[in-house]
Amino acid sequence: MAKWANFLAQHSERFLEELLDFLRLPSISSLSENATDVQRAAEWVAHRLQAAGIEEVAILPTAGHPVVYGEWLHAADKPTILIYGHFDTQPVDPVDLWTSPPFEPQVRQGRVYARGANDDKGNMILPILAAEALLKTEGTLPVNLKFFFEGEEEIGSPNLPPFIETHRQQLACDLIICADGTTWREDQPALLTGFRGLCAMQIDIQGPRMDLHSGIYGGTVQNPIHALVQLLDSLRSPEGKILVEGFYDQVRPPTQEDREGFATIPFDEAEYGESLGVDTLFGETGYTTYERAWVRPTLEVNGIWGGFQDEGVKTVLPQRAHAKITCRLVPDQTPDKIVALISDHIAKREPPGISTTIHAEPSGALPYLIPPDHPGNRAAHTVLSELYGREPYYTRLGGSLPICTLFLQQLGTYTVNFAFALEDENMHSPDEFFRLSSFTRGQHAYCKLLQQLSHQEGLQPPRGTC
Amino acid sequence: MAKWANFLAQHSERFLEELLDFLRLPSISSLSENATDVQRAAEWVAHRLQAAGIEEVAILPTAGHPVVYGEWLHAADKPTILIYGHFDTQPVDPVDLWTSPPFEPQVRQGRVYARGANDDKGNMILPILAAEALLKTEGTLPVNLKFFFEGEEEIGSPNLPPFIETHRQQLACDLIICADGTTWREDQPALLTGFRGLCAMQIDIQGPRMDLHSGIYGGTVQNPIHALVQLLDSLRSPEGKILVEGFYDQVRPPTQEDREGFATIPFDEAEYGESLGVDTLFGETGYTTYERAWVRPTLEVNGIWGGFQDEGVKTVLPQRAHAKITCRLVPDQTPDKIVALISDHIAKREPPGISTTIHAEPSGALPYLIPPDHPGNRAAHTVLSELYGREPYYTRLGGSLPICTLFLQQLGTYTVNFAFALEDENMHSPDEFFRLSSFTRGQHAYCKLLQQLSHQEGLQPPRGTC
Repeated sequence: MAKWANFLAQHSERFLEELLDFLRLPSISSLSENATDVQRAAEWVAHRLQAAGIEEVAILPTAGHPVVYGEWLHAADKPTILIYGHFDTQPVDPVDLWTSPPFEPQVRQGRVYARGANDDKGNMILPILAAEALLKTEGTLPVNLKFFFEGEEEIGSPNLPPFIETHRQQLACDLIICADGTTWREDQPALLTGFRGLCAMQIDIQGPRMDLHSGIYGGTVQNPIHALVQLLDSLRSPEGKILVEGFYDQVRPPTQEDREGFATIPFDEAEYGESLGVDTLFGETGYTTYERAWVRPTLEVNGIWGGFQDEGVKTVLPQRAHAKITCRLVPDQTPDKIVALISDHIAKREPPGISTTIHAEPSGALPYLIPPDHPGNRAAHTVLSELYGREPYYTRLGGSLPICTLFLQQLGTYTVNFAFALEDENMHSPDEFFRLSSFTRGQHAYCKLLQQLSHQEGLQPPRGTC
Repeated sequence: MAKWANFLAQHSERFLEELLDFLRLPSISSLSENATDVQRAAEWVAHRLQAAGIEEVAILPTAGHPVVYGEWLHAADKPTILIYGHFDTQPVDPVDLWTSPPFEPQVRQGRVYARGANDDKGNMILPILAAEALLKTEGTLPVNLKFFFEGEEEIGSPNLPPFIETHRQQLACDLIICADGTTWREDQPALLTGFRGLCAMQIDIQGPRMDLHSGIYGGTVQNPIHALVQLLDSLRSPEGKILVEGFYDQVRPPTQEDREGFATIPFDEAEYGESLGVDTLFGETGYTTYERAWVRPTLEVNGIWGGFQDEGVKTVLPQRAHAKITCRLVPDQTPDKIVALISDHIAKREPPGISTTIHAEPSGALPYLIPPDHPGNRAAHTVLSELYGREPYYTRLGGSLPICTLFLQQLGTYTVNFAFALEDENMHSPDEFFRLSSFTRGQHAYCKLLQQLSHQEGLQPPRGTC
């Protein structure tokens, strides 16, 4: 057994306690009242990096939540690897659907339950533990390492673009490893070759200047909820096709190779529906479920509200109605263009008697693709095949990791996804959890990956100061 | 000056203080946490009736909030008049839009601001004060009086039908006066000849069994908000016509006389729109605003909610979505039939991948009509013409007073509306108010009406024990 593997085994209890400690911080980036908790999470990460033997650790401010940086650059003539992750979490509502409180982590039947357990605290701590194991047993690392953790991933990383632009030199590297994301199954690895992008907006409808009695005024003025419903319904056909003019114009169709590759991945429609509690799947005609989730764009209403929502009856014609919309984008769609198309669509169809405001949220993310045979992917393929005893699938992710596109644009460097969350772990939902088996395996995987990368063919030679 | 008029003038300050006292009770009938407050309001009314000299005052239980009863039956050979009103109120949300707290009444510029000020506490107290003035100055009343006040009007009087059925003898009378409703303008009275009915329901859509990540699952399962939007949009055309099959089948068209009468009532479209803060009115093609409000049925969504409603972005595909709907009904529509038609419409169009539940709220009300030349209307016409110096308009009300139909069905007696709220007084909305001028005039009007009714031609002779 390698010395680092022995170290991981000896310290496994401490590592789990540390993860639980980390999960107790309610670092919800979207809620202003949790800003201090995000800061505390940054401090926790900084201390943990230092304890692992990482150098130059710093909490760096942005216009929003801070970034945590650390490095170890003593592997002469070896590639420099930047490891990315995030220490912020999604909100927790509806909180009454959680079995245990979201920020009081519980281990039940080999799983850690907490908000952030798999997205992304359980993942992002893995490379830190791996680096510690290698440093404490070998006294050195096989590659140069830079750690870069952010606190705004769940709100679309609005302050990262300017940060990366002004820290290009500090972040320069030969490959980025993203410790955020999912793999396929407990016994089946996958390599992600692309993510969907994202754009987000809120629609606000203003009708009369006050709530009105629906008896006295009902039938004589426009009801903002009806106007909203009419506008939202015009965005999508009953068959799931988005009806916004030009919406699909920039969509790059999947290649024949992509589609054939996806088709080799087993899919059990009944099992999928059952796991979600729906009696039938639903999506765009002419595409498989994988294709709908990976290579087709979406438009989803994430929230809607207006008027009376309490117990009983209130005969009100409300003055306002609201909806939140996000679109998942695929190459070569861009968030700005899609927001503009939706805004035009709505402006053209605004019903009489109300006014509509569209507010684009600063959460845009471009879609991302990486060549399946990129040297970083080949290194990951080697490690995962050895560790799982089976070759990884080449898949995509329907979600967005905007940072990958940002890194490619700003640093000119591709990102390989190397993470161990699984899709059934209630990410973004009540009862989010992370498997302890993934937590253990991930530590080993990162040790092996760093070793593999030190001699991976095709990785750019180290440049200058990196 | 009549002695009763003198009494009203002398006690005007006390009467106002009493009204403010009454308005401090947050008697919201729809919220279970306010049940005690509704009970306290009943006790307040009972004490006030006793103080006025009314006899046999009692708080009578129902399966919900109680009823308050009192009588004075010493006018031999005179008709018996039952006076109806309600001491419960609407909820107060959105409470942040109130200038002063809804249950801390404030008098500002000749107006009393409070929830319940015009609907119905300011109105229902008027006949009590009038009876007190007549009794304390004349020692007698010109007619036999029965007072009947309820605490569930704002939730559709669900427990009144069985109550009236078992108290038919006690409530028997020759005419009912409803002290709940509006008149036309501060300087223009009106007589109401009909109300719209009401039915209410809630639609609940259940999609997946948990909230889902819109990236991973978006595009592959039905979104309950989209399903809800699609169903709601199918209920109404963009031009405001209700598309539910059979919805208009039972609608009795207004008579030529009705339409001609309505057309004589001045209507300023620009002023109406401006008072509500809308740039254009909206309603069913082919009808005037009065006709849309009075003789045409409506279907309005009163509330809608589902998914994420907080600050920022949450990329969620929610598990549930909900809407509350009420319809205003006209003769000869019935609540049960309309609820059944809407339920059928929705069941037929249920999108795949979700399940829909429709819950009919126990708030049904039949529409109501009274002949314009009914003896009760003639008496009110005489009093109002004299008091205002102008003849009342014959109008209808778009809202519902289910009690009128109930009285007609159960007691065989028509109800005349005799109330002094005005339509600009933010009924059911923030900053509800009641004019002090209406408060004073209403006391005089009730004294005169009771005197007029004592010799009104055509009123049925007193029967037996009444």
